[in-house]
Amino acid sequence: MSSGEDDLIARYFKPLAVAPGALGLSDDAAILPGHGDDMVVTVDAVVEGVHFLSDDPPDTVARKALRVNLSDLAAKGAEPAGFVLTLALRAPDVAWLTPFAAALGEDARLFNCPLLGGDTVSTPGPVMISITAFGRVPPGKMVRRDGARPGDLLIVSGTVGDATLGLALLQGADSPGLAAAARATLVERYRVPQPRLALARAVRVHASAAMDVSDGLMGDLAKLCRASGVSAVVEAAAVPLSAPARAWLSRDAALIGRLVSGGDDYEILCAMPEDRLAAFQVAAREAGAPVSVIGRVIAGQGAVELRDASGREIRLERRSYSHF
Amino acid sequence: MSSGEDDLIARYFKPLAVAPGALGLSDDAAILPGHGDDMVVTVDAVVEGVHFLSDDPPDTVARKALRVNLSDLAAKGAEPAGFVLTLALRAPDVAWLTPFAAALGEDARLFNCPLLGGDTVSTPGPVMISITAFGRVPPGKMVRRDGARPGDLLIVSGTVGDATLGLALLQGADSPGLAAAARATLVERYRVPQPRLALARAVRVHASAAMDVSDGLMGDLAKLCRASGVSAVVEAAAVPLSAPARAWLSRDAALIGRLVSGGDDYEILCAMPEDRLAAFQVAAREAGAPVSVIGRVIAGQGAVELRDASGREIRLERRSYSHF
Repeated sequence: MSSGEDDLIARYFKPLAVAPGALGLSDDAAILPGHGDDMVVTVDAVVEGVHFLSDDPPDTVARKALRVNLSDLAAKGAEPAGFVLTLALRAPDVAWLTPFAAALGEDARLFNCPLLGGDTVSTPGPVMISITAFGRVPPGKMVRRDGARPGDLLIVSGTVGDATLGLALLQGADSPGLAAAARATLVERYRVPQPRLALARAVRVHASAAMDVSDGLMGDLAKLCRASGVSAVVEAAAVPLSAPARAWLSRDAALIGRLVSGGDDYEILCAMPEDRLAAFQVAAREAGAPVSVIGRVIAGQGAVELRDASGREIRLERRSYSHF
Repeated sequence: MSSGEDDLIARYFKPLAVAPGALGLSDDAAILPGHGDDMVVTVDAVVEGVHFLSDDPPDTVARKALRVNLSDLAAKGAEPAGFVLTLALRAPDVAWLTPFAAALGEDARLFNCPLLGGDTVSTPGPVMISITAFGRVPPGKMVRRDGARPGDLLIVSGTVGDATLGLALLQGADSPGLAAAARATLVERYRVPQPRLALARAVRVHASAAMDVSDGLMGDLAKLCRASGVSAVVEAAAVPLSAPARAWLSRDAALIGRLVSGGDDYEILCAMPEDRLAAFQVAAREAGAPVSVIGRVIAGQGAVELRDASGREIRLERRSYSHF
């Protein structure tokens, strides 16, 4: 006599549990062999109606739930070791679970981060997916937020602000003149983050501090600065933008504030001494990940400033996104 | 400019983050030093209205959320190393969060299992707490479900069935003749499990297979037997019962089926060769944890049988509890 939960796990998630330590999801716990590394542990949850939309395709929900955690591992300089999953569902729904589990399995393989275990629970409320992900670093080598020093360069991967525009589109925002393909690109950036695991090693080797940008570039930079006991200046013109974001910005100059404070970028923000830049750029190029110098760390107490081309501060209404 | 979530974490949970690897909850991830051990990972979530009741005191909700995971670690023979928390709330409520966080901190100290990190999310639905807990075992020494062999004795810690009676009382069940203190004991057993961490080492040293009993003794035993490729016989008279459960059973003999199939016991079920029993009993006594031999593993394919004093099978309507 097998319970509904066991059936659900066997059907949808057992095929994903390919790591030996997962024990086929048939035990109470998983084994994560130590191998002498430090384990980096991160946990992020996504809630229907808050972090993803009810009508987002289930495969994108799965990818986002895992990738927001992989993004944290990448920013900490860690190689993925596996993850566990808590899935809260109103009822087991084949049409939703099948693509959800398939995409989760594809991403687990793609990023070499196997499912180790999980819990499925019934809830009358919205779907919620909480993932705890594990990564390995050599002992003492996790890249923290608190190591930035005055004089360090500030670097961000990829492009900033696309996801917040994608969400705006999904919520019905008007985007005069934006082609369908450009709109689709922005929506995809909201729904399916690209964790920068290819940069993990280079960040570990070169960065003095790093974090992933998930709640808005300027707000997250302020957190990094507070943790490090420094301040920072960002050049607006140096913030990397995608072609669709650039096109949108060209019609609405005030949009820059939103681009640097909107959530869901899942890019890496890091600081490093200037003499590390060339080697980091080479490593990033080899990893196929674009990186941009956006500003500089200065002495201070956690103040962050966005400057225009003439050196004047661009005032922001808010610097980050909060769900509460 | 700090977000509401950051304030909530700083106020309620930072005081709990006493482990160096938690980095004061001010980073994206925590560090769990390897020290060469295997890491045992377990995840269990509790949902308001499903695993706990809306009017359960928040301190008991916190303790239950952590302890159901500690119970898994104990059954796997692991020493606690820390945990991460996902907390889904409708809104930050001081009157609920203050006792919740205080009790979580007390239990973390009591069981030497520090908070390492977490995520708080807003939900319009029921409160949900998902905890991923980590334990250490020497390499290769996690006690699995699949090692039981024919001839092994079956042993369970503590008493069985109290929690299911406690839940019945909370749901308005009548218990003729049960004194107020006895009723309170049963309710407490439902609300605040006692993880058997004191037995972890003895289980690791002596047991051939183990799991925690969370969904009903007979159903969980069936899982252990299926994993091990064996069957089992349990003597009803040998199943350890508390005084209140015994009193209730004396007025309703059919209750035995419910006691051995109800959820939330959080006791350890293990199998071991007969020649290990004496040493295990000594270790259990030293640990202050009662243990009882309840039956025996036999050759078979996952069948489990409850027998009365005359050796006749007691048929059960169901063997375990399922939320789906």
